Amino acid sequence: MRYKLTVEYDGTSFSGWQRQKNADSIEERLEKAIIPISKIPVVIHGAGRTDAGVHALNQVAHFDLDKDVDCFKIQECMNFYLFNVPISVLKVEKVSNDFDARFSALERSYLYKILNRKAKPSIDLNRVWWVIKTLNIEKMQTAAKILIGKHDFSSFRAAGCQASSPIKTMNSIRISRQDEIIFFEFYAKSFLYHQVRNIVGSLFMVGAERWSVEHFIEVFKARDRTLAGATAPASGLYFSNIKY
Amino acid sequence: MRYKLTVEYDGTSFSGWQRQKNADSIEERLEKAIIPISKIPVVIHGAGRTDAGVHALNQVAHFDLDKDVDCFKIQECMNFYLFNVPISVLKVEKVSNDFDARFSALERSYLYKILNRKAKPSIDLNRVWWVIKTLNIEKMQTAAKILIGKHDFSSFRAAGCQASSPIKTMNSIRISRQDEIIFFEFYAKSFLYHQVRNIVGSLFMVGAERWSVEHFIEVFKARDRTLAGATAPASGLYFSNIKY
Repeated sequence: MRYKLTVEYDGTSFSGWQRQKNADSIEERLEKAIIPISKIPVVIHGAGRTDAGVHALNQVAHFDLDKDVDCFKIQECMNFYLFNVPISVLKVEKVSNDFDARFSALERSYLYKILNRKAKPSIDLNRVWWVIKTLNIEKMQTAAKILIGKHDFSSFRAAGCQASSPIKTMNSIRISRQDEIIFFEFYAKSFLYHQVRNIVGSLFMVGAERWSVEHFIEVFKARDRTLAGATAPASGLYFSNIKY
Repeated sequence: MRYKLTVEYDGTSFSGWQRQKNADSIEERLEKAIIPISKIPVVIHGAGRTDAGVHALNQVAHFDLDKDVDCFKIQECMNFYLFNVPISVLKVEKVSNDFDARFSALERSYLYKILNRKAKPSIDLNRVWWVIKTLNIEKMQTAAKILIGKHDFSSFRAAGCQASSPIKTMNSIRISRQDEIIFFEFYAKSFLYHQVRNIVGSLFMVGAERWSVEHFIEVFKARDRTLAGATAPASGLYFSNIKY
């Protein structure tokens, strides 16, 4: 039996999604929380690996059990063993054996949050990127338009990226402000390593009026990571949704 | 010179607003953060004392300095000394000497947040009250109407309340839902000790359909704390605003 898991987490205190030696990962926490039901070790396959400090609103994963267990019972058991751990199992569903959390995905979305005000964050500490200078939303929206469609994203690709090609298709980007928070939403079938954080780091340069929109376009077209802005901090990033 | 301070904080790790021996309070943290400017101990007078675990979006306080210091310099200095502490100074303003953060207040407002879903909180851990059973918003809105105006709030007054009278005037209450979060907003010149948390605890009984709206009204009219619902947890409460 294959099960699909939808998970929310605050990534602040974790080394990231992926299981690692001597580090506290979300994957390992979930794998331990299923043992009381499975009785044997289970591998949980995530739709995407998030880095240390990155959060998730709806991360998806799948795993197999050799028995048929009620989905709500699995959810309750896992959440019980994750008591006081900032990981929540939002949903458990039975799926067919050809479902793969990573490879069956049709579209992923990421959310990036900037707290844009003079005072440092407190209630949102570790859950936003704090930017003091008031950012120009309209200019960032204009710059982001160039990214829509199928392009070579080498300028926004991290050195450690394992994807075979820098070509990706960005379906849409939405940038909006609600009081002191700026929301960036990115929709694509898949993303390069650090792609969202690198794009936000360069859009920030446009919003802060250190770069013109034209300069952003040049940086993007140069396909050269060294010309682009710094990688935006992990704390503002949320793996938000996956469509299958 | 008198200064007005507007402060945001996550109350999770504090013993509350008020300075106490052997406990970490918001008041003490703020009083320590002003010392580099004042050079001498300063007493910070808050508009309202919040309990352990209660948050603030816009708490107001005042303090006096024997010199004229630039407001932005005070804000920057305090936030610097509060680095990595979940307390933020949002604003510093010069005010006249008859301004009193507590006694000059014309209206205070509190926000209470319930996370209303099956899965426990993770991103909002310690910042909401988690309620599994879907609450009926319309019934809570109907019940809350009886509280508007000048009434004897003895049914929702904590035992330790030091107010001379249980009579208070509730200006307005708004209850709304946004996805999985239920927002309760309360507006009054002043509140009794635990009044908001006690009201939410009883509105919860109505929303969960354990009490009828008529029963809620009877409880309120009985002016007897022992008949009312449990006190809602501190984690969902935010001191949200003050009008002067």
